[in-house]
Amino acid sequence: MSLSDPRRQKQLKTLVEKLGLSADVPVRWDLLDLALTHPSVSRDKNYEQLEFVGDSVVRLVAAEVLLETYPEALVGEFAALRSMMVSDRTLAEFADRYGFERYLLVSSSTSIDRAGRISRLADAFEAVLGALYLSTQTMILVRSWLDEPLREKAAEIRRDPARQNYKDALQEWTQAKYKKLPQYLVKEINGLDQERFCAEVWLNEQKLGVGTGRSKKAAEQAAAKSAFLEVVKG
Amino acid sequence: MSLSDPRRQKQLKTLVEKLGLSADVPVRWDLLDLALTHPSVSRDKNYEQLEFVGDSVVRLVAAEVLLETYPEALVGEFAALRSMMVSDRTLAEFADRYGFERYLLVSSSTSIDRAGRISRLADAFEAVLGALYLSTQTMILVRSWLDEPLREKAAEIRRDPARQNYKDALQEWTQAKYKKLPQYLVKEINGLDQERFCAEVWLNEQKLGVGTGRSKKAAEQAAAKSAFLEVVKG
Repeated sequence: MSLSDPRRQKQLKTLVEKLGLSADVPVRWDLLDLALTHPSVSRDKNYEQLEFVGDSVVRLVAAEVLLETYPEALVGEFAALRSMMVSDRTLAEFADRYGFERYLLVSSSTSIDRAGRISRLADAFEAVLGALYLSTQTMILVRSWLDEPLREKAAEIRRDPARQNYKDALQEWTQAKYKKLPQYLVKEINGLDQERFCAEVWLNEQKLGVGTGRSKKAAEQAAAKSAFLEVVKG
Repeated sequence: MSLSDPRRQKQLKTLVEKLGLSADVPVRWDLLDLALTHPSVSRDKNYEQLEFVGDSVVRLVAAEVLLETYPEALVGEFAALRSMMVSDRTLAEFADRYGFERYLLVSSSTSIDRAGRISRLADAFEAVLGALYLSTQTMILVRSWLDEPLREKAAEIRRDPARQNYKDALQEWTQAKYKKLPQYLVKEINGLDQERFCAEVWLNEQKLGVGTGRSKKAAEQAAAKSAFLEVVKG
């Protein structure tokens, strides 16, 4: 089955080949087309439903990759790691690697909204995963190319978690595990250096971490980092 | 491949048959055994890793069931609906339906912890889904029996959302969509009836709902309900 518009069909075939899939894999082209159609182009026929499926697909694949790659690690470490692996930021990075933006249909007013770019790309990426999963009802068309970037990302996070957003990661972890958000307490300190703020992060009446920074936000990130490293690195 | 302990093997076979699966489906019995082993029995060999996989499996299956059952519904409705369909409470209910407790190995000190029963059963249920998914790398062994209870639950929630916990559901929805928690403002009111408290629920400087109740908690639930119905029912 192919699309009625031969230009679009050709475009999508190019993308599938970029993913390293052979051109004759059983892709549901109609779904792939939807997955790369932003709601600004069509209110009804867009990527939203597929994104809803795809968000679970990427979480499932990330779980499998983690368990296969680090069979000896404690699963407590995985929840936080996975939340970074499937964050909008990471998924948009993957989408960029394969040039998804070229294939994503958006209205012209949307395309100039730079602030929404990351979440647009992440949404479309998830939707494409949804379309590929639904094409065969297996992860074959997904894992054949996505395992490697996910493994690299997991290794990168474990090697250098400092490049990540710790507040987001810590929050996703406490949400998943305790259904609660961490609380931050920030106070101004009068130090000699430029670290003007000190933040503590608490959960369930327990102090998880402390950090300092030049701004409130930086201090909170530092506190989240110290808490997160306890969790992820054990 | 079967387990070395014939009694355990027989037990797990009985469970698989209860799920409506034929006894000769390609189940990884070693994984199913793990899925039904609580961490209190073994620190290393327990259901935690499989639960990590299974939590995405049930979300994915729920997404597919919703899209297939309500193809015309708006996807905005699905996120909240799914969060109720895959809540600990629902999954424990499913686990009870198939008598999972009889097959779950726990330490005797754990088995008398009634407060933890729901989450234990929900965890084990997710782990079993993880084991069944990993047995074939498809959803075949899961969807053949789980679709129906999920469809029933979705219909039940749409018919009578009042039986659900609205605060939890609203929170899962705002978390998923805005990465924020709703804020509740509760004040005492001096009414003539017994509704002593009035609660408002806010998100992003927007009032989502209002409710009253005989306790603070009841008022918050009522406020969450009014907000949630706006979201789910559109």
